[in-house]
Amino acid sequence: MSLQKKYLMTPGPTPVPAEVLLKMAAPIIHHRTPEFEAVIKEAEANLQYVFDTKNDVLLFASSGTGVMEGAIVNCFCAGDTVIVARNGKFGDRQKLIAQTYGLQVIDLQYEWYEQVKAADIEAALKAHPDARGVIVTQSETSSGVLNPVRDIAAITAEYEDVVLIVDSITGIGAVECRTDEWGLDVVMTGSQKGLMLPPGLAAVSVSEKAWRAADRSTLPKFYFDWKKHRKAMKESMTPYTPAVTLILGLNEALKLMREEGLEAVIARHSLLASATRTGVEAIGLKLFAPPEGRGSAVTPVWAPDGISSGKIVGIMKREYGVTITNGQDAYKDRIFRIGHLGYFGPFDIITTLTALEMALTQLGYDFEQGASIRAAEAVFLS
Amino acid sequence: MSLQKKYLMTPGPTPVPAEVLLKMAAPIIHHRTPEFEAVIKEAEANLQYVFDTKNDVLLFASSGTGVMEGAIVNCFCAGDTVIVARNGKFGDRQKLIAQTYGLQVIDLQYEWYEQVKAADIEAALKAHPDARGVIVTQSETSSGVLNPVRDIAAITAEYEDVVLIVDSITGIGAVECRTDEWGLDVVMTGSQKGLMLPPGLAAVSVSEKAWRAADRSTLPKFYFDWKKHRKAMKESMTPYTPAVTLILGLNEALKLMREEGLEAVIARHSLLASATRTGVEAIGLKLFAPPEGRGSAVTPVWAPDGISSGKIVGIMKREYGVTITNGQDAYKDRIFRIGHLGYFGPFDIITTLTALEMALTQLGYDFEQGASIRAAEAVFLS
Repeated sequence: MSLQKKYLMTPGPTPVPAEVLLKMAAPIIHHRTPEFEAVIKEAEANLQYVFDTKNDVLLFASSGTGVMEGAIVNCFCAGDTVIVARNGKFGDRQKLIAQTYGLQVIDLQYEWYEQVKAADIEAALKAHPDARGVIVTQSETSSGVLNPVRDIAAITAEYEDVVLIVDSITGIGAVECRTDEWGLDVVMTGSQKGLMLPPGLAAVSVSEKAWRAADRSTLPKFYFDWKKHRKAMKESMTPYTPAVTLILGLNEALKLMREEGLEAVIARHSLLASATRTGVEAIGLKLFAPPEGRGSAVTPVWAPDGISSGKIVGIMKREYGVTITNGQDAYKDRIFRIGHLGYFGPFDIITTLTALEMALTQLGYDFEQGASIRAAEAVFLS
Repeated sequence: MSLQKKYLMTPGPTPVPAEVLLKMAAPIIHHRTPEFEAVIKEAEANLQYVFDTKNDVLLFASSGTGVMEGAIVNCFCAGDTVIVARNGKFGDRQKLIAQTYGLQVIDLQYEWYEQVKAADIEAALKAHPDARGVIVTQSETSSGVLNPVRDIAAITAEYEDVVLIVDSITGIGAVECRTDEWGLDVVMTGSQKGLMLPPGLAAVSVSEKAWRAADRSTLPKFYFDWKKHRKAMKESMTPYTPAVTLILGLNEALKLMREEGLEAVIARHSLLASATRTGVEAIGLKLFAPPEGRGSAVTPVWAPDGISSGKIVGIMKREYGVTITNGQDAYKDRIFRIGHLGYFGPFDIITTLTALEMALTQLGYDFEQGASIRAAEAVFLS
């Protein structure tokens, strides 16, 4: 068999730039040293840059789910009422975590292809004046839907005792997330997404309002205890052994992001998403996310009638080395998802659309070959 | 300034073999694929090999403290009584975690330079028939003391409802830890120790008795929930995004360990520890750990009268590029610790002893130069 080049086009993990991989392959350094304190300090400044915030940003050796749980255990007490607005797999997880810790969940459930509505949250807050938190996913990995966290923050800002918790794990570095300007209290991300790193590192930003919630919180916590982390990070340390190599990689990845500039990073993602959407529509496929809520991190697409998306994903991977992902839960084998957050450029999209066209042709789907490329080219040229 | 080669001689992180660093620098792969399922399967078998067990071994993206917390929240209910036997910083942490989750702690506190006594645990179990767990550190990073977990296990085996939780974070891969033969219910380790990896990955083995405790446990948990992990690992998956690169590195490191053979790995550590101890004693220094409880992971040594261990550590690092560590808490500036668990051979010990001799000479300590090397050579030749 001839050499098959591999292309990873999933919404995490995303490809890691060679500069970052090599930085992480350098001999390991000790974490209780002035050198590493400088690394932590730089990492914190870098995270504040990508989170667009002056808030504390805390770093954890964990996957994104760990900091999701951390947000719950640091902000609330058992019995507290929280509003969870969910339209995908990760919103479902937030609800599960909240219930695990004995919170009363006001459940705003949407279809995965719908956007969360800020007005519903406003109504829920009025109906439940005892609510202490609103939890929402900014960019749903499972559905590609971008939720209006800016509008939601404008509402929660009116409630002194309500913290807004935003899962931006698949958002940060791919879509606009103005933590301070919009007033997002808790924002979290994971390393294997817009930050262009391997998985295993997660970060959370904490506003003054969220620190007040943390002061009041009585849920038990240890590893994810924000206060312990803040105390350590004031001295440019972490309370427990940090993921040294991933943090070194973070600083290297951030060099690339700072050189490009955060606005340019977001604009690049927007362009790649637009080309992907235009391309798949040009060959007659339907987008999954609604027009008002299409994010730049991942593009989910309905498989054509009578064709399983699992088959499309399988052929693209096996025959062409291009890894995209199937739908999850109820949308398994019905949609496929093209990830484009992280270390991606126009020709990654062209490669993916071409592999998609070839797979669809093999599966008997009727369309004009090359049309998706022509449409994407036009977007890149515009 | 001339090039200064660096030597990391700390009890974690330990140096990572170049083969492992390069494996982790390969292009990232997706974790929801048959390829990665094979990686997880191999990792689990590898961990069972180093833990010397047929029990389930669960993998987490976290530092060691995460799995310490995990053991508590998975085995107990609020209000349960547990016996914590502690003689160092990490034993102290176990007590803190247990108290954080509302457990009643029967506190067996020893000096850091004493070994935990199995007879004390036997007496505590008799005095507290409601006890549900015994928690002990096998190899204390802070003190170098090796605790008699085998003898302790012989006692807990008599109690159907008592799980024995062993923090072997600095033990696994450095000292003998026969999980099944001795009957250790819960054993945990972290990646940056005997496994020769960067920090960020942790593992825990769970016996049938511990699974029964988990069935009974009502403490809230999510990220560290063992049952979710067992369910996923039955299908060679993890419930949340795994630390992909570290797991690939784990399998590469285990190739090296399997080639050497676990008994030979333990014997090598024992030899390195013996040479280190003999070397420092040959220049008149006193060992911190008691003769009956000296582990092979790290050798703590009293600084000579009138000389701060912090100064010794500082000169060795600054002038010779050799990083050892200071004592912690009450022993800061009184002892220094030479780590030798992981990727180490005889000449790392010779390098460290030589740098130590030169630093001590600069600090005015009176001894016969070269004596520590002569003594270590004799150990290696024996």
